[in-house]
Amino acid sequence: MPWTLQQVAKHNTPSSCWVIINNKVYDVTDFLTEHPGGSSIILKYAGRDATAAYEPIHPPDALDKNLSKDKHLGELDTAAAKEVAREAESREKTQDEIRVEQAQRQKPALNRLLNLQDVEDVARKVLPYKAMAYYSSASDDEISHNQNIIAFSRLFFHPRVLRPVSVCNASTTLLSTPTSIPIFISPAALARLGHPLGEANLTRGAYRTNIIQIVSSNASLSYEAIADARPDPNQVLWFQLYKNKDIMKAEARVKEVVKLGYKAICLTVDAIVPGNREKDIRAPWVLDNMENLGGAKWGDVVRQPGDAEVEEKEINIMGTAGALISNDDRDMTWSETILWLRSITKLPIVIKGIQCVADAVLAAESGVDGIIISNHGGRQLEYSLPSIEVLYRLQKERPDVFDQLEVYMDGGVRRGTDVLKAICLGAKAVGLGRPFLYAQSAYGEAGVVRLVRILEREIISGMQMLGAQSLKDLVPEMVERVDWYSAKL
Amino acid sequence: MPWTLQQVAKHNTPSSCWVIINNKVYDVTDFLTEHPGGSSIILKYAGRDATAAYEPIHPPDALDKNLSKDKHLGELDTAAAKEVAREAESREKTQDEIRVEQAQRQKPALNRLLNLQDVEDVARKVLPYKAMAYYSSASDDEISHNQNIIAFSRLFFHPRVLRPVSVCNASTTLLSTPTSIPIFISPAALARLGHPLGEANLTRGAYRTNIIQIVSSNASLSYEAIADARPDPNQVLWFQLYKNKDIMKAEARVKEVVKLGYKAICLTVDAIVPGNREKDIRAPWVLDNMENLGGAKWGDVVRQPGDAEVEEKEINIMGTAGALISNDDRDMTWSETILWLRSITKLPIVIKGIQCVADAVLAAESGVDGIIISNHGGRQLEYSLPSIEVLYRLQKERPDVFDQLEVYMDGGVRRGTDVLKAICLGAKAVGLGRPFLYAQSAYGEAGVVRLVRILEREIISGMQMLGAQSLKDLVPEMVERVDWYSAKL
Amino acid sequence: MPWTLQQVAKHNTPSSCWVIINNKVYDVTDFLTEHPGGSSIILKYAGRDATAAYEPIHPPDALDKNLSKDKHLGELDTAAAKEVAREAESREKTQDEIRVEQAQRQKPALNRLLNLQDVEDVARKVLPYKAMAYYSSASDDEISHNQNIIAFSRLFFHPRVLRPVSVCNASTTLLSTPTSIPIFISPAALARLGHPLGEANLTRGAYRTNIIQIVSSNASLSYEAIADARPDPNQVLWFQLYKNKDIMKAEARVKEVVKLGYKAICLTVDAIVPGNREKDIRAPWVLDNMENLGGAKWGDVVRQPGDAEVEEKEINIMGTAGALISNDDRDMTWSETILWLRSITKLPIVIKGIQCVADAVLAAESGVDGIIISNHGGRQLEYSLPSIEVLYRLQKERPDVFDQLEVYMDGGVRRGTDVLKAICLGAKAVGLGRPFLYAQSAYGEAGVVRLVRILEREIISGMQMLGAQSLKDLVPEMVERVDWYSAKL
Amino acid sequence: MPWTLQQVAKHNTPSSCWVIINNKVYDVTDFLTEHPGGSSIILKYAGRDATAAYEPIHPPDALDKNLSKDKHLGELDTAAAKEVAREAESREKTQDEIRVEQAQRQKPALNRLLNLQDVEDVARKVLPYKAMAYYSSASDDEISHNQNIIAFSRLFFHPRVLRPVSVCNASTTLLSTPTSIPIFISPAALARLGHPLGEANLTRGAYRTNIIQIVSSNASLSYEAIADARPDPNQVLWFQLYKNKDIMKAEARVKEVVKLGYKAICLTVDAIVPGNREKDIRAPWVLDNMENLGGAKWGDVVRQPGDAEVEEKEINIMGTAGALISNDDRDMTWSETILWLRSITKLPIVIKGIQCVADAVLAAESGVDGIIISNHGGRQLEYSLPSIEVLYRLQKERPDVFDQLEVYMDGGVRRGTDVLKAICLGAKAVGLGRPFLYAQSAYGEAGVVRLVRILEREIISGMQMLGAQSLKDLVPEMVERVDWYSAKL
Repeated sequence: MPWTLQQVAKHNTPSSCWVIINNKVYDVTDFLTEHPGGSSIILKYAGRDATAAYEPIHPPDALDKNLSKDKHLGELDTAAAKEVAREAESREKTQDEIRVEQAQRQKPALNRLLNLQDVEDVARKVLPYKAMAYYSSASDDEISHNQNIIAFSRLFFHPRVLRPVSVCNASTTLLSTPTSIPIFISPAALARLGHPLGEANLTRGAYRTNIIQIVSSNASLSYEAIADARPDPNQVLWFQLYKNKDIMKAEARVKEVVKLGYKAICLTVDAIVPGNREKDIRAPWVLDNMENLGGAKWGDVVRQPGDAEVEEKEINIMGTAGALISNDDRDMTWSETILWLRSITKLPIVIKGIQCVADAVLAAESGVDGIIISNHGGRQLEYSLPSIEVLYRLQKERPDVFDQLEVYMDGGVRRGTDVLKAICLGAKAVGLGRPFLYAQSAYGEAGVVRLVRILEREIISGMQMLGAQSLKDLVPEMVERVDWYSAKL
Repeated sequence: MPWTLQQVAKHNTPSSCWVIINNKVYDVTDFLTEHPGGSSIILKYAGRDATAAYEPIHPPDALDKNLSKDKHLGELDTAAAKEVAREAESREKTQDEIRVEQAQRQKPALNRLLNLQDVEDVARKVLPYKAMAYYSSASDDEISHNQNIIAFSRLFFHPRVLRPVSVCNASTTLLSTPTSIPIFISPAALARLGHPLGEANLTRGAYRTNIIQIVSSNASLSYEAIADARPDPNQVLWFQLYKNKDIMKAEARVKEVVKLGYKAICLTVDAIVPGNREKDIRAPWVLDNMENLGGAKWGDVVRQPGDAEVEEKEINIMGTAGALISNDDRDMTWSETILWLRSITKLPIVIKGIQCVADAVLAAESGVDGIIISNHGGRQLEYSLPSIEVLYRLQKERPDVFDQLEVYMDGGVRRGTDVLKAICLGAKAVGLGRPFLYAQSAYGEAGVVRLVRILEREIISGMQMLGAQSLKDLVPEMVERVDWYSAKL
Repeated sequence: MPWTLQQVAKHNTPSSCWVIINNKVYDVTDFLTEHPGGSSIILKYAGRDATAAYEPIHPPDALDKNLSKDKHLGELDTAAAKEVAREAESREKTQDEIRVEQAQRQKPALNRLLNLQDVEDVARKVLPYKAMAYYSSASDDEISHNQNIIAFSRLFFHPRVLRPVSVCNASTTLLSTPTSIPIFISPAALARLGHPLGEANLTRGAYRTNIIQIVSSNASLSYEAIADARPDPNQVLWFQLYKNKDIMKAEARVKEVVKLGYKAICLTVDAIVPGNREKDIRAPWVLDNMENLGGAKWGDVVRQPGDAEVEEKEINIMGTAGALISNDDRDMTWSETILWLRSITKLPIVIKGIQCVADAVLAAESGVDGIIISNHGGRQLEYSLPSIEVLYRLQKERPDVFDQLEVYMDGGVRRGTDVLKAICLGAKAVGLGRPFLYAQSAYGEAGVVRLVRILEREIISGMQMLGAQSLKDLVPEMVERVDWYSAKL
Repeated sequence: MPWTLQQVAKHNTPSSCWVIINNKVYDVTDFLTEHPGGSSIILKYAGRDATAAYEPIHPPDALDKNLSKDKHLGELDTAAAKEVAREAESREKTQDEIRVEQAQRQKPALNRLLNLQDVEDVARKVLPYKAMAYYSSASDDEISHNQNIIAFSRLFFHPRVLRPVSVCNASTTLLSTPTSIPIFISPAALARLGHPLGEANLTRGAYRTNIIQIVSSNASLSYEAIADARPDPNQVLWFQLYKNKDIMKAEARVKEVVKLGYKAICLTVDAIVPGNREKDIRAPWVLDNMENLGGAKWGDVVRQPGDAEVEEKEINIMGTAGALISNDDRDMTWSETILWLRSITKLPIVIKGIQCVADAVLAAESGVDGIIISNHGGRQLEYSLPSIEVLYRLQKERPDVFDQLEVYMDGGVRRGTDVLKAICLGAKAVGLGRPFLYAQSAYGEAGVVRLVRILEREIISGMQMLGAQSLKDLVPEMVERVDWYSAKL
């Protein structure tokens, strides 16, 4: 029985809350308290169409997975659907949308982008404010985030000359899977915030350049859709696991991706509580200000008259980011969690989020297959050491660890020289997250390919100038950490 | 016998100086030389009403305590009181007052403040220039002040993963008194400069968030009024003691607060002479310029014609700050002063103002109950080491001291991660001064509560990301001082 | 048989490509694939006059050396030559040309230039954008380039007093050739980009100041023309060798310069692949923007509509610089290449491009006569250590190397004190590249002389203030590397 | 026989050059080649009045001392003197003079100056450009000059508490002469450039504050005039000696000051050749530009048409500074020069200009009475270590030197804390040069007194906060050099 807008509109309260998504009506009353992003964001759309807000941050199968079938109330009637479409179309564009549209028309040709900063510069112009705030934000004052990048600048090379390098090859294997150059796509959520094709851009770009993509638990496409986006079913994808505190859901998630053919599980351990990403949290306030006031004013916030002196209230200060991991298990342990994972899958296990030497050693002792030294792109604990610093210490203090498992790192990689420094210090490969989001947001699949080609060129010529024919020629002695230089952002 | 304005106005010279405060007439002729702030500021109001200048920087009982009863000459008559009120009302607003009123109307809602910098940003807008100059100023070029803050930025974490932290608790005890999180309100003078309710805002905010307030000797409310502001008489207050060089006055002050139920004495030892707070000293000149000249000009000062080439004259260059401690004992010693204090009270003794390892050791040997590592917020000796640096050295060089007394610190704490770093390095708790003044100035009691809630959230999530369930899980190994980063202010 | 423009114009495709240079017609169809700078730059001028683009970056004998005689098709007819001249003349000036002409009129008198920065400041104003981009550009983010300069600023002096220095002499010998002061002209390509007389300015300036010039393999004058520019045939020139991967061409090049009387071979080993000089690569895009758009816009590039989303294409991203070395041998080795060079010439051999201590030791063991510690002015591997840092380490770690061969360095020398620091640390002399290009570009031969005179004055007075009568009085103990200062650019 | 202007005007060539100074006519033809500042500056005034240019930079007895009596040609006649005066008066004011006059009217009252930076800020406004360029300039890029100041900022205190300091005294003796606080006036040339009373301001200010003044060999008043400026003949002055290369002149100079009652000889050894003070050299060009062009243009220089491409010419690039020392002995030695000085005077000898530990040791061995660690305010060898760094090293490496002679330092002292740091590190006293020039330039004698009072207040309160009753309580343990802070200028 198709619904009219009037019927839906009556259910606009916490005690009976319906919403319309893609012309279908859902009763989300009982779900309000379960919603990871909190109830208030849903109630904002109670009794009406929520499609525009819903789509970019939920995979298409989210409703099927999370809302029981009896709450799927059915379709809108034709007149209602038309009215919804008409309203969506007639809506006046926001200042931010106007800015983005203009930037899209003016963005440079892809072959004018020479380095990853160029790609990011385009993304900063063409991305909606909210998407950019979510992608770029990091914890507190973004110090760990910035230092991830800057830490590479303290590493200088001892290049070797008069070594034959006309034949030079940067390929390697990650857990036995070949890769053209020693980089992979770090798991990053919500690619559809930046581009309608979302994570599929990354998948196809990875295929064309022969690198590995790690798919985020919080992808904005379903894990199945991403697997289906592969041009070749043999293309290797890895899966990043946020372990749900509900053990049934956690197990189901692992089994789903095993079945879909994902080839490794990267258990993320550094994001058990939301990081304090203030730029992300402030994004809706900034956007409100843009619209109402013709430009942000003092404090980038709108004053709500009368509330300044009143009692403080608990508010939702999670932002887009916080919502995503609010159901994660905060009581994982080395002894139990690895065992549990081994018990439900034979896939290799990689621990993502190692932030100190001591935990790298524990990982090696636990028998996992690899670790990713990472502080979540500076999005979790502020003042976590830069990843490359942790790798540097691990190489100096416990070089034996590199013989026991594969060591990867991510965070701050922006140049081919960054990759080479990490390889010199013992990493098998390095991951990039934000740069891939920026590339696919600005240019789709072609941007992803371009980004890899830029890095490939920088890596190969860097190797040649270092006197290296293959990655095994890159050794710790070629890198020196200096105390007299540190880049400024 | 009520006085007329004409009668009072005759006494407008150093040889006979009367002033009106709250419609009462006082003969302050003999007091001129005793006034800690110097005579010239009083003489400015000789023979007339001084209420507006007097009130925010003196506790209500100051006249009773410092001026003998026979100098309390009695009330103004009704006509005079009306005239005084009329004049106060009809006075044209200053540029600074106009600015403050507008800012008060525009300040953001309390729940839009995400961190302590946000709070300070509001305070900078809504506080009168003179109050802000007094609160924010520090010695000389404010280097120790700035480095107090910056020094935290050189400490990075070694976070531990795969440790159960869903249950996480930041409570502790300070000299046996429980506190919800390991912070306290450092003693800070003259809260009424920023808000009419002054220190009472801090007292009530501390009650609602279950933390300890240390009340300043130079509070702008009487010690009794502050004690009375407690919603519950069991709420614990500590007292910060500036020891008067007059031993009788010093003893009387201690006995008063003991009687009022204060629970510890924090003897301040780093402020025996006034610090050189130039911003505070210049404040009246800047304000003069604002009024007379429509904006500050060269040197932020007004030229007094003819005096440039003349002989220099000793001038009062103490500012608001200097006046407060001009009667303090400059000859305290480890051997005598502690003994004296023990002889008049059984309360626990905390030494506030320890600035090097050697004195921390002496304090431990002296048998006091605690120390606060502090350089008075950078307001006393310029180039005193940042407090967290002294704590760091104490942990490295003399970890045994932490077993002999409770070690606190203040100075530069602005983030939950700052608190966690200090706790890792052995502190039982940390104090905050200026941030609480800013919070109560801008939002009263609600601001105080908000500030604690912000820190609580940052502390708890920081602990979870460090792998800590309780404060005892925070250990020195989790903190590393790096030589490659130092924040810029 | 003279050609008409119409006849030439027909050959404007890859399958038949003719160009006009200096009124002569050439068939470059077969040469397209061999052109070090790629075919597209030639095809831009297919069927028409290419003189203006060709001249400043090719030595006059380039066509004779690289294009077989049967492709030299002969002269334009008189009418055609006139038409070409008319067109060249009537061409509207570009924004950049107008800027340069105005700057040339306003440039300061030569005797107003007090230091090398003054010279560079003039050059930045009077040089065409493209020349400046080529001269000034360095790899990636220009960090090694900038650090070459900055690294000197961390070296402070221990000057000695009360030593007689009224007689003070800075002369020395380089491989037995006397030089007035311990500097030489580092090989730098394409001097004609900046001044029509090109490298001859350097040669004559070197003669007048009695210093050695090292001539670049990529000089824009022929090696013979440069030799002929010497006022005295006994003036000593050295030759910088890029070894062609074609052994015949490599040998021919060496034999040519031996025959011309060059006195040493400086084999360059740090530029086997092109560095990533982005400023150089972007130069044509920036110029396009200047013309079309009246000022560069977003990204300094022009959008080519429709291509943003398409497949990426391999593009020529070598810039002016990359083209020059695209035929160099990438498989040189210590064991073979030195032997080969010894086998074809008795001239002393200097290895240019040593970037670490280990390779300096290998060079000493290989028996060559000298090394130039150099990272190619920061134009090759980004994050190569600054040259003066490598020299510093060599002096600390392997002082014996200085007894086995002559050690020179270049990169970042801008002041007499820089020269003195290098000499203190064991260098026999230091080279300067860009400063000489800037000097000859802005003021021709006179600029070259002025530059040497400035350095001479700085060197002599610096020696006197250090307490040194001659270079041998400059010892490592006079230089200290500090950890508390580093200049900002 | 009085002269007419017409008569004088005929002698306006190098072969016969007369000038008028203070209505007297001099024949300086033979003196042209001897003039330390070169001949061209004199020839600029050949045949006419040179008083305005001559006066501020020459002591009144300069003509008597340097020009034989027969070249003193006599007086102008009355009409000529009137005409000279009229011309001087009617001369249009320069832009710079107009600026200075306005600034003099607006300068702040003396009692509004709280610190030495305030004094310098006034001086920068009220001083003529040329005077400021001479006073403030330093060598090359002014790095040693700036680092002199900044080096203090790396020294932090370990303040001690609970020590009796109500009685606190900063007095000491320098070579047995008492001084109220441990500072002295460093010799600085040409005080009359800034104030008509010149060095006498310093002398009288030193008397009133009971400190020692060291008089420069290049004072702009005669040594006798300065001695006569003393309110009390017992006031102690020291003399700074530039030893003339003419031993007769050198001896005469010493004997003159001995006779005048100066009490110590400070032999300056770090200025045997002129430093490269570019700001000073460029000053006349900048002033020319101001007048001719209504504001400086590109390069701050005026183009002289036609000369850009011509041969370079040796030019006078000494500036005001270089001229002063062009006759100094460049062949002084430890063995001979000290002996010579001892042979002609019994006064104590202080070596000024020690810049490294090794020379401090040689000084102690040579038996002199004191040394001033100094790099001439950064005006001589660029990259000479900051003075306080040299003092720091001397205390760490050779503390025995402090027992053998008195160690002073100058360079960069701007705050009371700077003084205290030097005293902690073993200095008996510190000198200040530029700050005294600025103070006397802006406010005459009163400015000098004010400056000392500011420092006295900062020193005394700093001592009290450090826990020191007298200078001997200031010990090396109270100062720590940190590696994490360095001020920015």
